[in-house]
Amino acid sequence: MTVPPADVPTGIWFNGARGSVATTAVTGLLALRENLVAPIGCVTEGAAFENVRLPRWSQIVVGGHDVVNDPIEKRAEHLVGTGVIPPEVYRAVRPGFAAVEAELREGCQLASLTGTQHEAIERMAADIAEFRERNGLARVVVVNVASTEPPVPLVDDLRDADSLDRALRDPSSRLLPPSSMAALAAFRAGCAFVDFTPSAGARLPALEQTAERQRVPYAGSDGKTGETLLRTVLAPMFTSRALRVLSWAGTNLLGGGDGATLADSVTAESKMRSKSGVLPSLLGEDVPAPLHIDNVPDLGDHKTAWDHISFEGFLGIRGTLQFTWQGVDSSLAAPLVLDLVRLMAAAQAAGSVGPVPELAFFFKDPVGLDSHDLAKQQRQLVEWAGSLPTSTS
Amino acid sequence: MTVPPADVPTGIWFNGARGSVATTAVTGLLALRENLVAPIGCVTEGAAFENVRLPRWSQIVVGGHDVVNDPIEKRAEHLVGTGVIPPEVYRAVRPGFAAVEAELREGCQLASLTGTQHEAIERMAADIAEFRERNGLARVVVVNVASTEPPVPLVDDLRDADSLDRALRDPSSRLLPPSSMAALAAFRAGCAFVDFTPSAGARLPALEQTAERQRVPYAGSDGKTGETLLRTVLAPMFTSRALRVLSWAGTNLLGGGDGATLADSVTAESKMRSKSGVLPSLLGEDVPAPLHIDNVPDLGDHKTAWDHISFEGFLGIRGTLQFTWQGVDSSLAAPLVLDLVRLMAAAQAAGSVGPVPELAFFFKDPVGLDSHDLAKQQRQLVEWAGSLPTSTS
Amino acid sequence: MTVPPADVPTGIWFNGARGSVATTAVTGLLALRENLVAPIGCVTEGAAFENVRLPRWSQIVVGGHDVVNDPIEKRAEHLVGTGVIPPEVYRAVRPGFAAVEAELREGCQLASLTGTQHEAIERMAADIAEFRERNGLARVVVVNVASTEPPVPLVDDLRDADSLDRALRDPSSRLLPPSSMAALAAFRAGCAFVDFTPSAGARLPALEQTAERQRVPYAGSDGKTGETLLRTVLAPMFTSRALRVLSWAGTNLLGGGDGATLADSVTAESKMRSKSGVLPSLLGEDVPAPLHIDNVPDLGDHKTAWDHISFEGFLGIRGTLQFTWQGVDSSLAAPLVLDLVRLMAAAQAAGSVGPVPELAFFFKDPVGLDSHDLAKQQRQLVEWAGSLPTSTS
Amino acid sequence: MTVPPADVPTGIWFNGARGSVATTAVTGLLALRENLVAPIGCVTEGAAFENVRLPRWSQIVVGGHDVVNDPIEKRAEHLVGTGVIPPEVYRAVRPGFAAVEAELREGCQLASLTGTQHEAIERMAADIAEFRERNGLARVVVVNVASTEPPVPLVDDLRDADSLDRALRDPSSRLLPPSSMAALAAFRAGCAFVDFTPSAGARLPALEQTAERQRVPYAGSDGKTGETLLRTVLAPMFTSRALRVLSWAGTNLLGGGDGATLADSVTAESKMRSKSGVLPSLLGEDVPAPLHIDNVPDLGDHKTAWDHISFEGFLGIRGTLQFTWQGVDSSLAAPLVLDLVRLMAAAQAAGSVGPVPELAFFFKDPVGLDSHDLAKQQRQLVEWAGSLPTSTS
Repeated sequence: MTVPPADVPTGIWFNGARGSVATTAVTGLLALRENLVAPIGCVTEGAAFENVRLPRWSQIVVGGHDVVNDPIEKRAEHLVGTGVIPPEVYRAVRPGFAAVEAELREGCQLASLTGTQHEAIERMAADIAEFRERNGLARVVVVNVASTEPPVPLVDDLRDADSLDRALRDPSSRLLPPSSMAALAAFRAGCAFVDFTPSAGARLPALEQTAERQRVPYAGSDGKTGETLLRTVLAPMFTSRALRVLSWAGTNLLGGGDGATLADSVTAESKMRSKSGVLPSLLGEDVPAPLHIDNVPDLGDHKTAWDHISFEGFLGIRGTLQFTWQGVDSSLAAPLVLDLVRLMAAAQAAGSVGPVPELAFFFKDPVGLDSHDLAKQQRQLVEWAGSLPTSTS
Repeated sequence: MTVPPADVPTGIWFNGARGSVATTAVTGLLALRENLVAPIGCVTEGAAFENVRLPRWSQIVVGGHDVVNDPIEKRAEHLVGTGVIPPEVYRAVRPGFAAVEAELREGCQLASLTGTQHEAIERMAADIAEFRERNGLARVVVVNVASTEPPVPLVDDLRDADSLDRALRDPSSRLLPPSSMAALAAFRAGCAFVDFTPSAGARLPALEQTAERQRVPYAGSDGKTGETLLRTVLAPMFTSRALRVLSWAGTNLLGGGDGATLADSVTAESKMRSKSGVLPSLLGEDVPAPLHIDNVPDLGDHKTAWDHISFEGFLGIRGTLQFTWQGVDSSLAAPLVLDLVRLMAAAQAAGSVGPVPELAFFFKDPVGLDSHDLAKQQRQLVEWAGSLPTSTS
Repeated sequence: MTVPPADVPTGIWFNGARGSVATTAVTGLLALRENLVAPIGCVTEGAAFENVRLPRWSQIVVGGHDVVNDPIEKRAEHLVGTGVIPPEVYRAVRPGFAAVEAELREGCQLASLTGTQHEAIERMAADIAEFRERNGLARVVVVNVASTEPPVPLVDDLRDADSLDRALRDPSSRLLPPSSMAALAAFRAGCAFVDFTPSAGARLPALEQTAERQRVPYAGSDGKTGETLLRTVLAPMFTSRALRVLSWAGTNLLGGGDGATLADSVTAESKMRSKSGVLPSLLGEDVPAPLHIDNVPDLGDHKTAWDHISFEGFLGIRGTLQFTWQGVDSSLAAPLVLDLVRLMAAAQAAGSVGPVPELAFFFKDPVGLDSHDLAKQQRQLVEWAGSLPTSTS
Repeated sequence: MTVPPADVPTGIWFNGARGSVATTAVTGLLALRENLVAPIGCVTEGAAFENVRLPRWSQIVVGGHDVVNDPIEKRAEHLVGTGVIPPEVYRAVRPGFAAVEAELREGCQLASLTGTQHEAIERMAADIAEFRERNGLARVVVVNVASTEPPVPLVDDLRDADSLDRALRDPSSRLLPPSSMAALAAFRAGCAFVDFTPSAGARLPALEQTAERQRVPYAGSDGKTGETLLRTVLAPMFTSRALRVLSWAGTNLLGGGDGATLADSVTAESKMRSKSGVLPSLLGEDVPAPLHIDNVPDLGDHKTAWDHISFEGFLGIRGTLQFTWQGVDSSLAAPLVLDLVRLMAAAQAAGSVGPVPELAFFFKDPVGLDSHDLAKQQRQLVEWAGSLPTSTS
């Protein structure tokens, strides 16, 4: 079987390219290219992926959209101040930001959009296609890392690709949220799409149809980096031991842009929904599971999660588990973004179309979910990686 | 293939039959027999074991050795007071203790032993064999739940079954610790042996040879019920995400008999060794991992473990995880003991000889270890269960 | 100076006499009378109160109102099951419940009230007065331990005792919440009143005037038993060291009646308000302080609070403090209730009228507050106790 | 009353001037002088000290001894890397290090000492006196912040100033540990002495006599910055509420120089002893209180303490409190060092001689202790401050 090689020039196109996650990923990519840092946190550097034909760090080029204009170098400098990027890494890679900056384009803001959404999406798709041509890239993976959006009601026009297409040409329509515009632009440009947020993105029937028609793969949603990551190993621990979880309470404290965005209860609803499916699925029943996300500005990107799990054991005797997870949000997310780009590039090269459930390992709310159990997801990922073309094939 | 059925009268012979773990297991067994409680904490009641030919609760008969003489009913009453056994369960099963009491025999205390260890072991084996005959049992599983012993230096006579046999006939020799006497008695009586403690038990070359010669299986060591259980899901979480664990500190607080035993630093050494292999194996390297077990009498059986894990992520940025596990030790252990008895009976029925590494899921320091990763151990267990004779075969 | 002696027969009249706090207090009082238990948790048994003329346990008689009818003995038995009352204490004091039961009267339920609130309050006052006469009590302290009520809007008729009196005679008026009816009944009967909940109780201008007119003292509000207790020692620690608290997040998990009541967000508002004044007052500024109270039924009376405090130190370097408090709510509250009864009896005996700010030590939201600092409150309490008539004066 | 003014040029002489605490204090002092930072963590900047005649930041000059030679500027740069000093503060104050460097002298290392200890101490005293003259200082406060030493056995020659003096002239004698040499040098030079470590320092009868003879004050021992600070507010909380603490377990994790020093069990003994007096004194009884200090190199100066407190309340019902304190050791210590210098200068100006128990607020193991209760200690400190000459007197 002859497949297009994956280890060829590959692009990342960020939707939200000046945000913390993208900026951290870019900084890290620049450092990895030069071998300035060890690839800690990068799953695709593990033994299981050794022979998989993945783009090398030096082959990955970055571009993207954003609705704000602060130079990415300034954003990186800011992240040095908040403890997300070490100052010595920043200093070492600083010259590399200019080339990335040159590939960033203004994103589409619904509030100030003139013309139809259709036109806006076409422009976005053109930006991506031009980026691919200009850089001689074999393929581009579009990754949504923009701010979380409120949930989107599933109206009829979102159920069908043709209806959607018509609706988008109506000048008064603002049917699609920005994340789904990004997904649609990706598909139109023939690109794979990854939603690293809980926003709608590609998860609307009309979008899913479009991906199939365009023969492109997509993955998501909502990168699993903290509390939920822990839940997906701890809940299986309880069930594997036949211990009955009675309640699972959680509190998340964080500041930064994410904290501010999630302080809005409507937006937070998307995150809450994304997180809330995990426990019932893993425990096999609904247990009381109060969950809070609090905006604590002083914490910035240093998020803290506290979970309290109450369980029943032999003869009804109770026990509890509490954990406190303290991590830097963008730092936990960025290497997964790079992993996903490499893996989606390989998936597209191998002909994958539609949802890629084998990447569930990375997400809180995975498309085409089989299981939320991290160990199972990892096995699935590794098996899938083993089925991809090898670097020597 | 025709195999002896496992769902036939089966015995448990406890070494340490009046201790907290055995007493809790007995109380629970009495309650399970009468369907008074749900089998929470019993892994073998899960879907994966549905078709495996395991002894039913009503087919399991209990006997055992102990060096103390308090009636088991009194011990159970005491455990009601310390929150290990619910009062209503105790009251419901109380009439059942008499039959168990009638099957308990005085154990061997090295300090007051007259005669050779050989004679003592023969007497112990005879007790077990008579128990089997008297109750018409197809087989008996011997389970060591006596107090943890100090580590045993591996002298030459312990390296070879024949040398050991000669040495044990020397009236002045006290070569074998009690746990290994129990193992040897089990093997002599043709019984499977489980070591639920970190004591030497069957883990001496001479004993291992004896098990092979007697064609009996054994399993162990040291039931995994708390801090180590968590470590075997959390360490794989870090490695699966390519996060580098920098240190893993642990503090264990407990009272009760176990707390007092482990307050002795020589004895605690066995427990420490048993626990200490887990992290290097799972993390692939040695990290600073200070570990303490403190005797805090007021906590009784309610043990508390606090772990602090420091890790390095993308670009060297740090994070931490802390957990606090609060559980009732004997309550966590007892259902696993019952599981092990059922599974070892099935193993012996199926012709298993020597170490049974597929039971690693239950132990801190498993014989014939493949991996400390709980998810892998569970898969291995389930696959092995699938290979056992089914209840309809 | 001759004062009426306090160590004379004294009554407690509970509003909410069949609730968990009252039932636990009654059980404890019965046990203390017989010297069956040590007075752990009773502040008034400390050295500072040795010479203060306080009613002895054996001199305290209990009566009360409740809107439910379950026998108090049954309620106590239930609390044995939930771990609030030890079974051996329950068994020992059981014969004593009958006498308490005989002094309980049906409380007033607004929903089913016929007639005016004025008449209902007169009946309640009469119940209290008859209890005092029947038992030959020198005085009665009325304690509100009924369920927390939603906040009460301060309409004009609540601002003035005479207006209130007129309004209560209007058959269509339901102006006063049950806690304030209890306070008014106490005042009409010439009794001291303690509000152990965050409900309005005596904290309405019209009620405050009535207390002054009737020459009776009152104290409250909202017993300080857990998270807030800790905050009132930890916040002063930070300020005394000139460390700047940046945020103070809190999560409370509890079940039981309280958990269910507070699951209603309108009612919870009273509790939230009561708790929310503490930090700004102690820290001298408002800091982000998200606070949650979650209903987690399986925890019952075993409440758990987790607080996360972020602070800034020298040169702006950050630190954090987290605590987890696990306690049994009614068990923490009951001894304080008994303390308050003794102290309010002494206060009334000594001629105290209106708010008693020296009891701030016991409350989350103290009347006539000077400081929320527990150490200062304790000093104030001890100094005040020193000013009360001594048992030998 | 005319007293020598305190707000005159004042010196700090550090024993251990190139260590983390001294370096952080120096950096902070340089920043405070220029008003570059707010005086967070400096108790003497509070309202209670407003009118006390204390040396102003601009009037404080730094010198000191150390046995290592790395430039203090390099040490500060290192502390930027470990998160103890913010980079922008370092950059702003950098020019100021040269003047401090010029005042640093080589300390005395016992291992390489030639000649008698008497001569060495005379040289140290001369260094201090010359520093005072050279800078025209009214007085100098000597502060020991060198590494913790093992406990010193109290031999006869340490019991009496004259015996000690004779013994020190014996060329073969190495009687005094370095901390006590520093104290003696301070006293000989007529200077106040502060021991911020648990080493012997001035706490030997012969040294105490010397302080009295030289008419100088001293304070100590062992700055209270973390776990013990919390214990001195939490233990009084329990006793004030008549709750009975049953056990109080503690684990301390830290790296850095302190972590390495305390990894040595002999040295750690000094720290353990210093910490261990607090609980029995505050609780009025000895409770099981296992305590560990673990060297966890990756944590560096970011120390973490976890305490688990088990208590008994009303009717014997149990509860627990756990806390986790995460702070940067030198950052917590440095402002207290500056506070102590200002206060000891004022004390000496006001004629204070011998131990200054009013400074107990700052120490784990205070000289002339009245109480370990932080709130009491603070009151005592504030009252004492009120008795010092005011800046307008």
